[in-house]
Amino acid sequence: MNKHIGKQTTQFLNPPVIVASSSIVGPREGEGPLATYFDTIIEDELFGENTWEKAESKLIEKAVEKVIEKSNKTIDDIKYIVCGDLLNQITASTFGIRNFKIPFLGVYGACSTMAESLIVASMIVEGGFADYIIASTSSHFCCAEKQFRSPLELGGQRPLTATWTVTGSGALLVAESGDGPKITFATTGKIVDFNVKDAMNMGAVMAPAAADTIINHFIDTERDENYYDLIVTGDLGKVGKDLLLDILKQYNYDISNKYMDCGIEIYEPEKQDTNSGGSGCGCAAVTLAGYILDEMKNGKWKKVLFIATGAMLSTVSVQQGESIPGIAHAVAIEN
Amino acid sequence: MNKHIGKQTTQFLNPPVIVASSSIVGPREGEGPLATYFDTIIEDELFGENTWEKAESKLIEKAVEKVIEKSNKTIDDIKYIVCGDLLNQITASTFGIRNFKIPFLGVYGACSTMAESLIVASMIVEGGFADYIIASTSSHFCCAEKQFRSPLELGGQRPLTATWTVTGSGALLVAESGDGPKITFATTGKIVDFNVKDAMNMGAVMAPAAADTIINHFIDTERDENYYDLIVTGDLGKVGKDLLLDILKQYNYDISNKYMDCGIEIYEPEKQDTNSGGSGCGCAAVTLAGYILDEMKNGKWKKVLFIATGAMLSTVSVQQGESIPGIAHAVAIEN
Repeated sequence: MNKHIGKQTTQFLNPPVIVASSSIVGPREGEGPLATYFDTIIEDELFGENTWEKAESKLIEKAVEKVIEKSNKTIDDIKYIVCGDLLNQITASTFGIRNFKIPFLGVYGACSTMAESLIVASMIVEGGFADYIIASTSSHFCCAEKQFRSPLELGGQRPLTATWTVTGSGALLVAESGDGPKITFATTGKIVDFNVKDAMNMGAVMAPAAADTIINHFIDTERDENYYDLIVTGDLGKVGKDLLLDILKQYNYDISNKYMDCGIEIYEPEKQDTNSGGSGCGCAAVTLAGYILDEMKNGKWKKVLFIATGAMLSTVSVQQGESIPGIAHAVAIEN
Repeated sequence: MNKHIGKQTTQFLNPPVIVASSSIVGPREGEGPLATYFDTIIEDELFGENTWEKAESKLIEKAVEKVIEKSNKTIDDIKYIVCGDLLNQITASTFGIRNFKIPFLGVYGACSTMAESLIVASMIVEGGFADYIIASTSSHFCCAEKQFRSPLELGGQRPLTATWTVTGSGALLVAESGDGPKITFATTGKIVDFNVKDAMNMGAVMAPAAADTIINHFIDTERDENYYDLIVTGDLGKVGKDLLLDILKQYNYDISNKYMDCGIEIYEPEKQDTNSGGSGCGCAAVTLAGYILDEMKNGKWKKVLFIATGAMLSTVSVQQGESIPGIAHAVAIEN
């Protein structure tokens, strides 16, 4: 039986297991509707540090420590950590894991990073290269605004298409065996570029990539929307959600009655002034590590297709007139 | 027999094969001592584009096209591309591979990226998840200076510890079987931070990481320097080379009579004004894809330990008083 099926999909014949997950979020996420699912809610965006970037590193550090603790493992049990984030040169990850002395594979997939790190981790575990491995990512509202958009001090008004970068980090401990939901399939995304150039509308950038990956997942696995209890995207927000549903309908898939977007779930947009919803690597990560995996444990969902969506936004390429390419990676998580 | 041995190493029981490699370099590299080994030498740093960043994307695009052509494969044969570069948000890779529609795993390991992408690619192939996969990376002198240091127009003097970022891209096509050198072991590096803060001395940042990975490779594999015909680092330059040899001697390893650094080989420093030597992801990539693999084919070396070295340099973290952490990944390539 072949592990690589169709154009983009891998089937895990010995499915890796998510034996533990951890989540840590910022104050705004801690006031949102998913608050009770998170392990830790920090009180302010600086998290005791003197810069936002150092705070983001600390988020990853704490998420990784927590997932090791929750799995009753020690640092020495972990063979690899696969991790990345939105900061230039993925410094949140580098500094966040610096003290652990665990072999490190840095990844970058913008906000698709939670799914990318989970795919790489699952391949490493199923390939027999590790018993235990951590997949993690983070984002931080203040760091992301500063790096990608404009200084927070400017207090600029945000269009309704804009999303709010989640401050938070999620970590998953993937093992070759154990108790927990299993990774059964992974569909790795390709670059999808619909020539969107609006850095304040990430939903429009990412929706075509999400649609492309979902459709290819269905084709490759010979599954369709009826197979899953939940199909969840990372951070399309309200704008991207509508676009995704529209595109999929054109291809005769109607996922609307089992569809959710982490960016829509994590805030109450009207109360919390988050416009189109949440975004950032941390959005998909903490919603998966907290809400989704917890409710899978509770039996709410058994078959979940998790699609983290990324916009390969660069201030340099945008200033040079380039479009913003999108990418989305899908992971089938099943009980 | 276990695939994961020791603390940091993976043994490939069915060693993946590098069935083809390609290299493309800039004009300065084309005037250096390795010129005859490169597939393509471009005539100017802009490569027909209107920005350096677009030129760097084109380098990756051409390297990937070339390696597919040299292997007599088509784009449809390639299951994944594992790729990253030094540009923020790895945009050289994203835009470089955009037109290929190949599932894409973006990685970031600074100048260690050629080894990191090769390790991930080898695990994916040996794990049975792909028949053919491409590992690639690039760097561009003008992009790197602009992003990490100072505007080229400033014409600032460079200290003798500084290295010169290679303009170039290398691509390797890794397959589960075929003719070519085999990947037998991979030792994935951890973050090693000796608190170096000098962004003009990358050799000092990376030498301790290279030493750590080499020592752990020897311990994990129960090999030592006598096993290999060639031990080659990516871009330590003259300063880093001396440091590496000194550190290893303290641990009773003397690799000096079979040691080479890609950064030292690629230029003639006195003639070419490149101070400590070459650096950048492209330095290790084109030297491996061109010189080393070609000469392995010619029988010059049979057992090579290739260690690409990265400095996780970020202008933001340096400005915030942080050190520059290093990382190095090692791959044993054997005929």
